[in-house]
Amino acid sequence: MEERDEQTQPVSSAFDRDISRLKEMHPSDIAEAIEDRELSEIRSVLREFSDEYVAEILTELPQEIQTDLMENMRLDRVSEIIPEMYSDDAADALGQVSPERLKSIMDQLPDADVEEITTLLEYPEDTAGGIMRKEVHTVLTSMALSEAREAIRRGEEEDQDNALYVYAVDENGRLQGVLRLRDLLFRDLRLKVSSVMITDVRSISVNADQEEIANIFQKYNYLALPVVDDFGKLVGLVTSDDVIDVIQEEATEDMQRMVGLSGEEMVTTHWSRSAKNRIPWLLVNLGTAFLAAWVVSMFEDTLVKYAMLAAFLPIVGGMGGNAGAQTLTIVVRSLALGEIEDNEWRRVLIKEILIGSVSGVVIGATVGLISWLWMGSWVLGGVVCLAMQLNLLAAALAGVMVPIGLRAVKVDPALASSIMVTTVTDVMGFFLFLSLASIALKFLAL
Amino acid sequence: MEERDEQTQPVSSAFDRDISRLKEMHPSDIAEAIEDRELSEIRSVLREFSDEYVAEILTELPQEIQTDLMENMRLDRVSEIIPEMYSDDAADALGQVSPERLKSIMDQLPDADVEEITTLLEYPEDTAGGIMRKEVHTVLTSMALSEAREAIRRGEEEDQDNALYVYAVDENGRLQGVLRLRDLLFRDLRLKVSSVMITDVRSISVNADQEEIANIFQKYNYLALPVVDDFGKLVGLVTSDDVIDVIQEEATEDMQRMVGLSGEEMVTTHWSRSAKNRIPWLLVNLGTAFLAAWVVSMFEDTLVKYAMLAAFLPIVGGMGGNAGAQTLTIVVRSLALGEIEDNEWRRVLIKEILIGSVSGVVIGATVGLISWLWMGSWVLGGVVCLAMQLNLLAAALAGVMVPIGLRAVKVDPALASSIMVTTVTDVMGFFLFLSLASIALKFLAL
Repeated sequence: MEERDEQTQPVSSAFDRDISRLKEMHPSDIAEAIEDRELSEIRSVLREFSDEYVAEILTELPQEIQTDLMENMRLDRVSEIIPEMYSDDAADALGQVSPERLKSIMDQLPDADVEEITTLLEYPEDTAGGIMRKEVHTVLTSMALSEAREAIRRGEEEDQDNALYVYAVDENGRLQGVLRLRDLLFRDLRLKVSSVMITDVRSISVNADQEEIANIFQKYNYLALPVVDDFGKLVGLVTSDDVIDVIQEEATEDMQRMVGLSGEEMVTTHWSRSAKNRIPWLLVNLGTAFLAAWVVSMFEDTLVKYAMLAAFLPIVGGMGGNAGAQTLTIVVRSLALGEIEDNEWRRVLIKEILIGSVSGVVIGATVGLISWLWMGSWVLGGVVCLAMQLNLLAAALAGVMVPIGLRAVKVDPALASSIMVTTVTDVMGFFLFLSLASIALKFLAL
Repeated sequence: MEERDEQTQPVSSAFDRDISRLKEMHPSDIAEAIEDRELSEIRSVLREFSDEYVAEILTELPQEIQTDLMENMRLDRVSEIIPEMYSDDAADALGQVSPERLKSIMDQLPDADVEEITTLLEYPEDTAGGIMRKEVHTVLTSMALSEAREAIRRGEEEDQDNALYVYAVDENGRLQGVLRLRDLLFRDLRLKVSSVMITDVRSISVNADQEEIANIFQKYNYLALPVVDDFGKLVGLVTSDDVIDVIQEEATEDMQRMVGLSGEEMVTTHWSRSAKNRIPWLLVNLGTAFLAAWVVSMFEDTLVKYAMLAAFLPIVGGMGGNAGAQTLTIVVRSLALGEIEDNEWRRVLIKEILIGSVSGVVIGATVGLISWLWMGSWVLGGVVCLAMQLNLLAAALAGVMVPIGLRAVKVDPALASSIMVTTVTDVMGFFLFLSLASIALKFLAL
């Protein structure tokens, strides 16, 4: 018995030490510290924290773990944690939960929370409605400033939240203006809200796309923007910290999609899930690789006569791929940042063709000269030079037209654009080089 | 004479119409509308706006145009516009101006502005000091709340700015706490600032790197953070709109650097400058392309015997490149977002090796089978299959080790990583495939 006690003692105190160490940390740090553990372990850690604290930790955990916890935690605990969360965080936590479980949870929640969360769950994830919170400090335009102050005090007590912006609405809830701190602090308290508020207040539609919202925040340097529905009714608030998350997500998504990743893969994603996501894409790539191989195979006669031509295939194809990737990256990124207007793609195309021509001359001459010196054949040098020049032009064309074309048919310009451009530069590069070489072989000696 | 008048009339009124159209727009929109025009035209447009408005437009123009304007506008106009700008924007506008011109401008400015701007110009651009503004609403901890309110009122009048956060400092200017709106609105005005402020206030060091700051804002969802010097003295404020700009910049930079672009190229960059930036990089690529070509040339004997092997080079090399790009993108992005701790790279490596092995089996088997059917040689199929498997492993290794290695030697993991990984996958792919094929040719018939 004694021995057993000695064995369990250290385990239990290790857990206690762990908890007391975690208790000194910020909820975001706790989330980071525990996210790699087993679900059961995460649950026992969370049991040691108050509802309010768990609400904050939960928000910072990866989506999958949030869903798992919502599915598996005790129902009464869930129903106490959810009301402590911002409505948008609660909606995120519950977004992937099974319908039956969601119903059981909702049955336990106060009506006001159910309504807020349900509304949010109905908006698409990537719109203003999907990222906004419902909690906004509002006052009526008809209130006196003294009443407005009282309303803010009550609001702050309910939400435990600092009122940064206070919006004024009419009796139908339509957004009319915004109140500044100084108006509340320094004006005569008998004045009406409507007489001191700023009426020139920008808002975003609840249906606005999150990428568009990010561009608005970036361009105009807002810290927060009110969200209105189709009737001008104030329905929520998007703050710049939400926008920061959106921007990081969108940038990650674009980078990933360009190389055929899902857009949501993380280093923490389980390897088997990553493999399952990546392999189909690699198989698509394989198709295009065989296309390039088939082009090469058409020139078997030429290759049989002059096997060393094979050594120049990766040079012509690869350099086209590199130049195409440069053009593509500039274009995809500029499209994402809203820097290319609908009618501006021609200017971009002309620019890239100019760059392609100049680099074609420089790179073509260099590669031609080296090839001539290496193989001792000026004809071969000329063939490589010309093929390179033409392929860099093809790279510029593909690098601009693929993403612009994808956008025109409403597909994400980042999606698969990299593979399409590489296919063009490989196929064109091999075809140009081998057909020029075949002609040269026919009429001249290589 | 009359005819001439008729000719000039419409021109002048077109300008007037342009100006009255611009006058209805937000400064950010005006900047966007005029940024593509000639410098002289931009100057004549800006002449039509007040100093305050020009200050806001200027801030939103591209860096190069800001510098040009600072160099070429009338000195007395510049000296009236600068004081209307936030100190950080003023420092950005003046950052690239020639030393002589800067001195002439500084001589015309009020001493307080000169001091603020000079301090900011001394901080490296990519640190907290480089992105913060000097304007912060501060009160002394020893003040009564009534005095604090008075101080904020004066501050707001000077800066024309909404006080969102009010920081409390001791008599040496050291940050002690933060005041909430509710403390100013609802507490007894005779209370001391020190007795109502929140003392648990997070700050960032003036030397903190901007990427690190972006990660802090993202993780903890701040809207603003005070900046302190080495002595804990409050020296500025970073707001989340500054962070949004940093995040977009960093993401653009990473995307561009991965494909060998400068990190600062835009669609608006002049084509000749883009070409000058891109060509050196393409020449470096050319070196690695010749390396791959040299590997191929070593197997001339094999290629002479079986020319069709050339068709399989792009398949083995290209697929390795694609898989490597996927791994690389995940790792580079995770490093940028601070998701890979120093000791975690082994876990990432193991994960990618697992993915590489599984996709190696799947892709290898597929490519082997197709090759067998296409060329009617099971030996060739086997060679392609094995080479593909090994090359996908090499891709996983290179995709992880190149960026991790670059970071270990304090080089940006995005920089040139793409070319290095492609070089590995090309060289390894060609070598593996051709050497396996040579062995097979020696002992078996392909």
